[in-house]
Amino acid sequence: MKKTPLYLLITLLLTQGGYHLQAQQNTRITGPAKKPNIIFFLVDDMGWQDCSVPFYKDTTPFNKTYRTPNMERLAAMGVKFTQAYANCVCTPSRVSMQTGMNAASHRVTNWTFYSKDHPTDEPYAGITFPEWNYNGLSPVADTNHTVNATPIAQILRQNDYRTIHVGKSHMASYPTLGANPINLGFDVNIAGSAIGGPNSYLGIENFGNNAKEGAARTGVPGLEKYHGKDIFLSEALTLEAIKAVDTARLLKKPFYLYMNHYAVHAQYKPDNRFYQRYIDAGLGKEEAMYASIIEGMDKSLGDLMEYLEKYKMMQNTVIIFMSDNGGLSLVPPRGGKPFTHNLPLKAGKGSGYEGGTREPMMVYWPGITKPNSTNSQYIIIEDFFPTILQMAGINKYKTIQTIDGKSIVPFLKDNNKRDTNRAIIWHFPNNWEEGAKKAKQYKIVPETQGMGPYSAIRKGDWKLIYFYGLGKAELYNLKDDIGELNNLVNHYPDKAKAMVEQLITMLKNEKAQFPSNTRTGELMYPQVVKSSTE
Amino acid sequence: MKKTPLYLLITLLLTQGGYHLQAQQNTRITGPAKKPNIIFFLVDDMGWQDCSVPFYKDTTPFNKTYRTPNMERLAAMGVKFTQAYANCVCTPSRVSMQTGMNAASHRVTNWTFYSKDHPTDEPYAGITFPEWNYNGLSPVADTNHTVNATPIAQILRQNDYRTIHVGKSHMASYPTLGANPINLGFDVNIAGSAIGGPNSYLGIENFGNNAKEGAARTGVPGLEKYHGKDIFLSEALTLEAIKAVDTARLLKKPFYLYMNHYAVHAQYKPDNRFYQRYIDAGLGKEEAMYASIIEGMDKSLGDLMEYLEKYKMMQNTVIIFMSDNGGLSLVPPRGGKPFTHNLPLKAGKGSGYEGGTREPMMVYWPGITKPNSTNSQYIIIEDFFPTILQMAGINKYKTIQTIDGKSIVPFLKDNNKRDTNRAIIWHFPNNWEEGAKKAKQYKIVPETQGMGPYSAIRKGDWKLIYFYGLGKAELYNLKDDIGELNNLVNHYPDKAKAMVEQLITMLKNEKAQFPSNTRTGELMYPQVVKSSTE
Repeated sequence: MKKTPLYLLITLLLTQGGYHLQAQQNTRITGPAKKPNIIFFLVDDMGWQDCSVPFYKDTTPFNKTYRTPNMERLAAMGVKFTQAYANCVCTPSRVSMQTGMNAASHRVTNWTFYSKDHPTDEPYAGITFPEWNYNGLSPVADTNHTVNATPIAQILRQNDYRTIHVGKSHMASYPTLGANPINLGFDVNIAGSAIGGPNSYLGIENFGNNAKEGAARTGVPGLEKYHGKDIFLSEALTLEAIKAVDTARLLKKPFYLYMNHYAVHAQYKPDNRFYQRYIDAGLGKEEAMYASIIEGMDKSLGDLMEYLEKYKMMQNTVIIFMSDNGGLSLVPPRGGKPFTHNLPLKAGKGSGYEGGTREPMMVYWPGITKPNSTNSQYIIIEDFFPTILQMAGINKYKTIQTIDGKSIVPFLKDNNKRDTNRAIIWHFPNNWEEGAKKAKQYKIVPETQGMGPYSAIRKGDWKLIYFYGLGKAELYNLKDDIGELNNLVNHYPDKAKAMVEQLITMLKNEKAQFPSNTRTGELMYPQVVKSSTE
Repeated sequence: MKKTPLYLLITLLLTQGGYHLQAQQNTRITGPAKKPNIIFFLVDDMGWQDCSVPFYKDTTPFNKTYRTPNMERLAAMGVKFTQAYANCVCTPSRVSMQTGMNAASHRVTNWTFYSKDHPTDEPYAGITFPEWNYNGLSPVADTNHTVNATPIAQILRQNDYRTIHVGKSHMASYPTLGANPINLGFDVNIAGSAIGGPNSYLGIENFGNNAKEGAARTGVPGLEKYHGKDIFLSEALTLEAIKAVDTARLLKKPFYLYMNHYAVHAQYKPDNRFYQRYIDAGLGKEEAMYASIIEGMDKSLGDLMEYLEKYKMMQNTVIIFMSDNGGLSLVPPRGGKPFTHNLPLKAGKGSGYEGGTREPMMVYWPGITKPNSTNSQYIIIEDFFPTILQMAGINKYKTIQTIDGKSIVPFLKDNNKRDTNRAIIWHFPNNWEEGAKKAKQYKIVPETQGMGPYSAIRKGDWKLIYFYGLGKAELYNLKDDIGELNNLVNHYPDKAKAMVEQLITMLKNEKAQFPSNTRTGELMYPQVVKSSTE
């Protein structure tokens, strides 16, 4: 082995910043690099177009409306993925992220209510929903209607990471154990509980906590010090997150920050740091509120990056930006016209169409990702589980569950690498209450916006969606038709049939729960029937 | 190896109660027993006589005044130690407990202030105090004036224990890392911080939290849900402790509950569940308040035992009862006459005499300790570190520090076993502000009550105390003279000399810091000068 000259060693020491080269006898720079810090920055209900970073091939009017300079900065530092997917509602995505399991496998297929034993489905005529895991994720095996799995935070913690949970948790119902992130491998929990949205974003409203609440409280917990103060929730979470990260720094531990903003979930309140700007730009009150919440969330990203720079930790910190489902496209609470807020994607949260599941996603991995680059490989939220563990250098770990996700590290290392042979699936044998109810109010058939029980599969550019209620499969070529306007089932019946078969096979492999016909009691499976409404 | 007959196996299974004998292939009863839960129930400032359990050979008037039925019950279930020692003030004992180190070694020799870099010594004419570790215990090496050591909770946690901190922590100053129990190996922290006493015991007074407080707040933290409510602090802590233990039960993990009552530290407030009883019995207001706080603490012990019984966990839970220093014997806040509250022991908190360091201590270890028994072996608070790890079946562990404590398991297994050859030491090169000031108010020489810088050694029945300010050694035979009334230095000069020499040797081995002569700058060491005031 060639000896490293002293001046080079010194240079390395001076330039490595946050890297700490441990002097070891008989070894020089051959030891493992310090474990990177990892920030998983998860936004709630944020759509693919809700930012000034363009995720579509063109800059859209939405990109011009919303102002997210820190997301722009992150995009310039790393890679943006234009085809990253989550589930169509919140809890399934969060559980997939924590466990590496597809929703078909973990069976937490719809969002969990804040108190237990309360399925959240809107009834659907003729269809009986399966007994899905409506109590969420559990660290133990004997809680009814939960999935017992090894959470990623627990593995990271066992591998010396300081694991920090900030913000919305919403992985299980109170009082099951999974409702508290401390029971899911986190050292620190700031403001996470069984609730799925903030009663109030405002410190002056005690973040929605009021005297009437019982044990299963629905206000944002744990931020009492900000009660009565003029502070927006996103800012309070950020201040606390930075404190927690700073403690990890002082402890000389790598950290895993699971930064879950309650933003941009309803109920909206204006973030007054930014609100007036959007009113001045001509937006209506609802959209101005929404835009201000977006920008407040973006400010949080910027503040975290500023902290990392201050302590020279940017060179050893991975930042992953993600949202948990498609942008909400119901009116109210949004302004404008329903199901238009994610265009060119069709529909929004709760939908089997792209607007329901495609997410703004970016990764900055110093030394690995290419600055200012774009990647169009499709990936899905359970992929973050093996990806993050690989980033942390953790190759050996035990889990109760089988991991469905695939590490995206190869794509992070090479933007030109493609896997068009992989099939990814969605499974939602449920009915999203809010979407179903609002569609009825709008007097539209919910399925025209992808609402209702469905399963779907994507492989290459092709996507097939099966709507159980309609008994109908739809086939789209996303490359040519990102808006899912031209159903090609009748044009490509063999492809449709092959994709339905693969979908069923994969669902059965995952031991997915299928809905059943209420009248006959028979299980319902995806199928291709020649469509008259193509 | 002799085979165990089947009927004996069955009998064992039936009688082992909470013990879970894991059936393993090819092994019978050779597998490890289930790890026991461990409750370390630590009371603050509680004296040796502050209960209805007699720790002296006779029942004293104090035992008749205070009412602690649950301590009586614990005494009936296990063993009481009549010669268990702590340090003379709070933080040194707590750090010794956490680290297994003698105070001479960890150098946190006096109590720590709530904010950092603030030594708490009262000046002492002619003596310069050493630069002791006045910022307390730290999980990292680079915080000034702290001791960096591996805390016991961290080891227990690494060995699958759910580690729960409840109540007063007071192991380090804010904002050093050790001020937060979460940084010292605890999974859960309820109400612990850098503060050493409660601003208020009352929920209706928000436990002393007020709007004026800054970041280094001096109110009891983390119990916001009880603010404004008519609840006493000891009760709130107990409710939360039981919740935390219940979570451990549901997680199917053994737990280590470090139950640190703020009781019975000043400032006193009446615990109205019990106060009137003592007024009716003729106690003055101050002593009735104090007695009510004692009984409220005892109620907490009873509530925890009731929980254990409800879930059939009593057979697999160790309970250790202890206090952190001698009973406060200053007036005010106590009623009555100063330095009389621990009789027959001399003086109280802050003193080198027995009243400053001897503690009410009991252990219940199902299947091991003998019910309703008494043990007169002398032990010291750092002994709990190796003892608890041995109880937990943890034989291999790494610590930064050298452990000074000795496991007391042999004495727990056999009350007749004795070690009279072991020497234990105390090192307090400090001056307890409150005691020194009050003594002056009473117009008494502080050292007559054991106040002021001192070191001490006990071996067999003999105890030697050296007061640096007076330059005087005192020798007592505790078996004949528990009240330390007859200084035998002149009667046993050779013994006194030998004990001083052993004390110096042990202190030097511990790298103890000695005070120095302010005029000459010379370090001061214990010595025997023929006393004229014997």
